[in-house]
Amino acid sequence: MQLQPDHVRRIVEAVDAAFDDQLAFTQDLVRHPSLRTQEASAQDLLYDAMRARGLEMDRWDLDPEQLATHPGAGRIAVSYENVGNVVGTYRPTEEQGRSLILNGHVDVVPEGPLGEWSRSPWDAPILDGWLYGRGSGDMKAGLVANLFAFDAIRAAGLEPTGRIHFQSVVEEECTGNGSLSALQRGYRADAVLIPEPEEDMLVRANTGVIWFTVCVAGRPIHPREMNAGFNAIDAAYHVMGRLRELEARWNAQKGDHRYFEDLDHPINFNLGGIRGGDWPSSVPAWCELDVRVALYPGVTADDAWAEISDCLASVTADDAGNPLEATATRNGFYSEGYVLEEGSDAESALRGAHREVFRDELASFTTPGYLDARVFALYADTPALVYGPISEAIHGYDERVDIESVRRITKSIALFIAEWCGVTASTGVEAVSSGREAVPVA
Amino acid sequence: MQLQPDHVRRIVEAVDAAFDDQLAFTQDLVRHPSLRTQEASAQDLLYDAMRARGLEMDRWDLDPEQLATHPGAGRIAVSYENVGNVVGTYRPTEEQGRSLILNGHVDVVPEGPLGEWSRSPWDAPILDGWLYGRGSGDMKAGLVANLFAFDAIRAAGLEPTGRIHFQSVVEEECTGNGSLSALQRGYRADAVLIPEPEEDMLVRANTGVIWFTVCVAGRPIHPREMNAGFNAIDAAYHVMGRLRELEARWNAQKGDHRYFEDLDHPINFNLGGIRGGDWPSSVPAWCELDVRVALYPGVTADDAWAEISDCLASVTADDAGNPLEATATRNGFYSEGYVLEEGSDAESALRGAHREVFRDELASFTTPGYLDARVFALYADTPALVYGPISEAIHGYDERVDIESVRRITKSIALFIAEWCGVTASTGVEAVSSGREAVPVA
Repeated sequence: MQLQPDHVRRIVEAVDAAFDDQLAFTQDLVRHPSLRTQEASAQDLLYDAMRARGLEMDRWDLDPEQLATHPGAGRIAVSYENVGNVVGTYRPTEEQGRSLILNGHVDVVPEGPLGEWSRSPWDAPILDGWLYGRGSGDMKAGLVANLFAFDAIRAAGLEPTGRIHFQSVVEEECTGNGSLSALQRGYRADAVLIPEPEEDMLVRANTGVIWFTVCVAGRPIHPREMNAGFNAIDAAYHVMGRLRELEARWNAQKGDHRYFEDLDHPINFNLGGIRGGDWPSSVPAWCELDVRVALYPGVTADDAWAEISDCLASVTADDAGNPLEATATRNGFYSEGYVLEEGSDAESALRGAHREVFRDELASFTTPGYLDARVFALYADTPALVYGPISEAIHGYDERVDIESVRRITKSIALFIAEWCGVTASTGVEAVSSGREAVPVA
Repeated sequence: MQLQPDHVRRIVEAVDAAFDDQLAFTQDLVRHPSLRTQEASAQDLLYDAMRARGLEMDRWDLDPEQLATHPGAGRIAVSYENVGNVVGTYRPTEEQGRSLILNGHVDVVPEGPLGEWSRSPWDAPILDGWLYGRGSGDMKAGLVANLFAFDAIRAAGLEPTGRIHFQSVVEEECTGNGSLSALQRGYRADAVLIPEPEEDMLVRANTGVIWFTVCVAGRPIHPREMNAGFNAIDAAYHVMGRLRELEARWNAQKGDHRYFEDLDHPINFNLGGIRGGDWPSSVPAWCELDVRVALYPGVTADDAWAEISDCLASVTADDAGNPLEATATRNGFYSEGYVLEEGSDAESALRGAHREVFRDELASFTTPGYLDARVFALYADTPALVYGPISEAIHGYDERVDIESVRRITKSIALFIAEWCGVTASTGVEAVSSGREAVPVA
């Protein structure tokens, strides 16, 4: 680390000093149920929080037409009216250091049956060292940590000397179109950090993800003649079995993909949704499956999609010989995976910051899920560091994030910002104890 | 047959004379999409048609509270506001003959994906000897045949000497609550005829039907940790497999059930609907199955339900050992099967009428589906004759009814009415050529 030991100490102490406020703000944010297309009120909160910090504000709704020109955009069936990103930009008085994008997504996945939660997904209580709620780990704690890490630098009487864009994006859980839209809007920097819930570790490699719906037709008939009919639900399940054969083949190829060799089951095809049939006493005419598949970095979405399409085209009959046809339609992610190449300066800076806080080496690992980092890695040639706190049950019931992990990660991020962008002593403003009350610097 | 040959000839000719009108009226009725809870406009049409015939009219909405007191009623989750039966009663000047209920249901099952139909399910075209449309066979052709059979008797210059109730009921396709409500309202007769589409045959025995929804919970999680989760859709499909084992056991018992011994597969468990999962990238938390099962006559619904419940309670884990719980909730039919005992006077009368028209013996058979006849057979000790025209694809696409079969069945019904109720020469009214213009007789 180039950072002076005294600066390190002051920054770390500033994180501690404001940590209660940070948690309270995270709870506020969790209490906004920012489900897909319903992110606006959470974005309002973040907009106001960034503006109060004196950042240069930008906010726009996603543009489906512009997105559709990008090969990595996900297809949508929703309206993007009032669905948009918030970006706050910090510009140093004199830009000397390296620039940085601190990115996070504000959208959360559906909570599922409420009865299965121990308490409301939107209450955000803190219990036994965990902050609960849908989106608490994935990834509002990280999104807020970005802001409070920045606050800590200023509360320490310092100012970053590099430009910083704070991005709160939508659509990370379904298409990745939020970060892609920010890229299309022109946001670039020398590095990106995204504090997704990654168990205090750095993501080294990540799969791509494709979403599609498979439609299968049956031969409806009255159940009294059931054997003359052909149940579309059974047929769809048969088709899913064939897709799982493809999943097994892709998993068998893991040895050919660096960073995936040692994973038990890197490629997961998730049967995430099903709908079929109109009437209990009619042999179902139709069934639809929502499927999420993963693909290795280096495999293009087009190639993966061609294999999926071939697989489905090969299903021409069920086990009983009934002719069947399965058609697939993309309806979300169409993303490729990425690898964070080892040895970047950005990673070195993060390693230094992590070592200061954790007194341990930063571990890296491979994740088999979608991450917006691919937008920066694939389309802007930018090192994208995905690094964030310990969580449990993301996308599940009683999702929660480990509070002390959030504290450590916030310190790491603060030190990383200071190390990467550089810092200089504040001029004209007094160091304040809480970042929430920071005086504008622009 | 007691009926005079001249009366037979005149009645049969009257059916032919009015048959174009009968088809036109059936087409009108098919054009009303009388899906569940949307039967009102079709009932309006029938009400007006009955009233124009001078029948004593009755119309009421079903009463959920009263129905709930009956063990054979189906549980509902819909409103019965504006969902009701129409009954028109013919009372002879002097009631000498046996009384009769001519019953039919006006509700139809959902049409399924429209793209799979060759033409709209609600257009009711006549093509190559078939009348098409959802409900054409099941059972608007029969419902209309009841009325036009009656018209033919009067057009032949005759009047039935027994009381006749024309019942157009709802809820036959889901609960049987329509006919049950008519029973609760007090309608009784010496025999019942229901012209369901039965291939010019008489139903000898019929299964009961139970509807229920099975809810299965999974363990939701992000697909990156898919193996730590537990997919509720897969779990639900596993549960359906266990129910199919019960189905196989019940089918293996067919030898113990008179009239079912020779059926290939008398007990059909239909997986009629499925819903599960909220998000393609979440391992599904929940899945629901809509299941329709059949039971032999003589097996009580309570006993069948206990076996189903035991079967579901025995499913405590999937093949991988994941603990799972399946809960079932009744949501429609809770009906027992029935047998039309051989040798009734009503059946003899119908056999005679059928022989006159078809020049062949009436065949009887066993059907493995629900029929409202069980209401009359089980709860009013009344012979209930289910006997109707040839159809294809009921509950399927391009449902259709055979026009010449409808003509023959109408003639049979007319002769059956005359034979069962008795006839006398009309007094004070002139025989009219079309039943649609019949002069009131009451």
